[in-house]
Amino acid sequence: MATEATQADDPDAYAELMDRYGRISAIGDASGVLGWDQQVMMPEGGTPARSKQLSALSATSHELLTTDEFGDALEAAESADLDDGQRAAVREIRRKHERAVRVDTDLVERISRTTSEALPVWTQAKDEDDFDSFAPVLDDLVDLKREYARQIDPDADPYEVLFADYEPYLGLDTAERVLGRLREELVPLIDAIEESEADLADPFSGTYPEADQEALARDTLDLLGYDWDRGRLDVSAHPFTSGTQFDARITTRFDESDPLGALTSTVHEFGHATYALGLPDDSYGTPLGEARDLSVHESQSRLWENHVGRSQPFWNLLAPAVEERLDTDASPQDFYEAANRIYPENRIRVEADELTYHMHIVLRFEIERDLISGDLAVEDVPEVWNEKMDEYLGVTPDTDAEGCLQDIHWSHGSFGYFPTYSLGSVLAAQLHDAAAAEIDDLDGHVEAGEFDALHEWLTANVHRHGKRYRTPELVEEATGSEYSADAFLDYANEKFAALYDL
Amino acid sequence: MATEATQADDPDAYAELMDRYGRISAIGDASGVLGWDQQVMMPEGGTPARSKQLSALSATSHELLTTDEFGDALEAAESADLDDGQRAAVREIRRKHERAVRVDTDLVERISRTTSEALPVWTQAKDEDDFDSFAPVLDDLVDLKREYARQIDPDADPYEVLFADYEPYLGLDTAERVLGRLREELVPLIDAIEESEADLADPFSGTYPEADQEALARDTLDLLGYDWDRGRLDVSAHPFTSGTQFDARITTRFDESDPLGALTSTVHEFGHATYALGLPDDSYGTPLGEARDLSVHESQSRLWENHVGRSQPFWNLLAPAVEERLDTDASPQDFYEAANRIYPENRIRVEADELTYHMHIVLRFEIERDLISGDLAVEDVPEVWNEKMDEYLGVTPDTDAEGCLQDIHWSHGSFGYFPTYSLGSVLAAQLHDAAAAEIDDLDGHVEAGEFDALHEWLTANVHRHGKRYRTPELVEEATGSEYSADAFLDYANEKFAALYDL
Repeated sequence: MATEATQADDPDAYAELMDRYGRISAIGDASGVLGWDQQVMMPEGGTPARSKQLSALSATSHELLTTDEFGDALEAAESADLDDGQRAAVREIRRKHERAVRVDTDLVERISRTTSEALPVWTQAKDEDDFDSFAPVLDDLVDLKREYARQIDPDADPYEVLFADYEPYLGLDTAERVLGRLREELVPLIDAIEESEADLADPFSGTYPEADQEALARDTLDLLGYDWDRGRLDVSAHPFTSGTQFDARITTRFDESDPLGALTSTVHEFGHATYALGLPDDSYGTPLGEARDLSVHESQSRLWENHVGRSQPFWNLLAPAVEERLDTDASPQDFYEAANRIYPENRIRVEADELTYHMHIVLRFEIERDLISGDLAVEDVPEVWNEKMDEYLGVTPDTDAEGCLQDIHWSHGSFGYFPTYSLGSVLAAQLHDAAAAEIDDLDGHVEAGEFDALHEWLTANVHRHGKRYRTPELVEEATGSEYSADAFLDYANEKFAALYDL
Repeated sequence: MATEATQADDPDAYAELMDRYGRISAIGDASGVLGWDQQVMMPEGGTPARSKQLSALSATSHELLTTDEFGDALEAAESADLDDGQRAAVREIRRKHERAVRVDTDLVERISRTTSEALPVWTQAKDEDDFDSFAPVLDDLVDLKREYARQIDPDADPYEVLFADYEPYLGLDTAERVLGRLREELVPLIDAIEESEADLADPFSGTYPEADQEALARDTLDLLGYDWDRGRLDVSAHPFTSGTQFDARITTRFDESDPLGALTSTVHEFGHATYALGLPDDSYGTPLGEARDLSVHESQSRLWENHVGRSQPFWNLLAPAVEERLDTDASPQDFYEAANRIYPENRIRVEADELTYHMHIVLRFEIERDLISGDLAVEDVPEVWNEKMDEYLGVTPDTDAEGCLQDIHWSHGSFGYFPTYSLGSVLAAQLHDAAAAEIDDLDGHVEAGEFDALHEWLTANVHRHGKRYRTPELVEEATGSEYSADAFLDYANEKFAALYDL
């Protein structure tokens, strides 16, 4: 219940709520810096102290979000006279507050402890290809996250509740529909590619020193317009992006035999960073200065990675830098083909090409949904995994290490995260179509290294809104149409038909 | 007042207090990571967000330390049955709690805001050699810190209260006595050196590329036994050390014409880092796992910088690495002399030699003490500064930029900090004497690059105690005698008499 004072229409109520929320948001960003440091800079011995620092910040932030005073400030803001943006900000804070207060502190701590303990167990199980040693922990995590979902909404499908932690507004039915279409339409496309006799170029057969690859990554970020005054490029075991509109840093990794891997992952992370950097400075610390969750974030990374970074005009632009840095003299067309090879024999999600990637996601989605519903037992995961790999991609992993143990997500207790990768890729195509319809000769801009128009379009239509719109509204505002897989499937069919003479 | 429940002798009271304190401590360490990142890694554009993150952490930590619940937990622990170490930990937390609760939140915020605003004003005033533009801000800071001292203890000398923020237990009378002796005995020693006709070697007249200097710094840290699994070496505008027993990082800076500068500052920061790394792992997050304030910290950096790093056996050890990395073939004796040149014509504290350094401190101490007492007006600082420089060192700065504007401390509102530099140097000599008395042939160990015995002695006698002992007790436990300037003055007189044929 609100107190009498807060029921009045208080003109300062919004500012007061943002003050409280700003503290929580800043603590979250501080955790982000600690996380970046841990993965990029921290000496190994720092782990025990860093774990305590991170859990102190997360417990503090949870407490600040769930106090009665915070609830009162929220109610007061809700009864104040607000403009549309403010109302949206309050809506987002209400959602976050509700989800936090409904879950017992005890359960939060058990999940946090169990995931901490799960990480080394998973690492060892993967190293030793021993699913049985990870199975009991996975079982516990499934139970805990099911209970977590039940506490948030006892009447809802628990997987839907978990999915909404990562994508709050698209809805599980949309995810199922879109992933279903990807499965239906990509499996035959991939089959056709496998049967094609087209022989795509493969110009990167040598060894490419890390320093040369790094120079090329920096050249590429320069060309794309990365703001080095608000960013950095570093190396980490797994590429990621971290930060805010004032400081959005990317990482990559280098494999001396695979320069394309570092390059495409750098462009991917650049896309994430541009989203952060496009959020409005003056809304920092409020939901209007925060990115719209994972599927929209992934749409930005995939738009740059695939629709720019795997396009013909981009390789016409980049070819001279590649030739110089990597000392290789293939043609732009060769580079373009190399960047677009489809290789269904690959078993590893993070190494997958633009098409088969989605089959890795569909498989994980189906398995984790059935795990949470109870239709699939943990012990049966390896078998089901291998069957689905065979069904969708015609290959079977030789080991669980390169099968159901390959990804870290479940050891974090992250069920419902995987679908956002494909949902974002699909949205990338839809946004790119909309941008191309409004920017005169977008391909020409890309080939000329002129990315301002595309940056401006994305900032105006996506980034600057922060969390003002719910995901479906954001898509409609930006593209004029409903969220759908049409644009992606058209793009994929057309591009690969041309490449593979289908 | 304690509640009834907390007045009982509660066996969990200590654990409960440490739980609360551990949270605060971890948040403080998180701030440390953010500060390190800001000075070493952060792109410039990140400043606005970083400021908000740091103030969110500091406000949160202040709130957690001053709640009624924290006060109750503290009282409960004080009435519990504790061992000596636990009692010391509770004593330290009581002190911190008292100082925090006595100061109005409003004043804390005004100080924080004013120091934030003061930093760019000081930077510009220094750049433009314009003391008048900094004077009003300095005046505000003096008033605010005087009020801060008054709130903590209205009956005490305000400068003494401020000094105790940095060195809580030695007492201002000790500081005055020791600094007085340094002034009395070092001024004539420096005069005698100036009149000496001895001609010390100066073998570093060339240009030394940064990469070579960095390689030498790393060699030196390897020789000294820096634990790279719990540390890093990076570059920053001003060298500093940051971290905990799990992760203590040092920075340095390189000047191509002054390789000795980077080398001695690296050894200095190494000394700070060894203190952090020697704190007990299992007391992390409690006062028993924290360093004993600034003067003891400085004793560790100065012991390594001066008593090891400026000693003859050390240069016998290091000479081959210097010759190799810097491509210079002077003798160990030449290097030793170069590292110990006294140059009173220098006007900059951070570039001062081992002796004149203390005159820079005495001068600042006398000025800031009179500023806080009201005996000196801010507008008169430049004049008094220059008079004292002339009196103590026989030189006058040409500008305020290289005079009273040279140091950042006052713009931070840090009055009472400077004395700890000299107090620490003095303690370094006393500790080194005690170590040399207990370690057989310490010089021989140094010359052989065997530092284990010295590390072990310092860990056993200083580091492992954390904040268990008050400073004077710690000195007596470690050295068997009272804190005094005797060892330092004996050391200085003997060493420089030999070097300068006095």
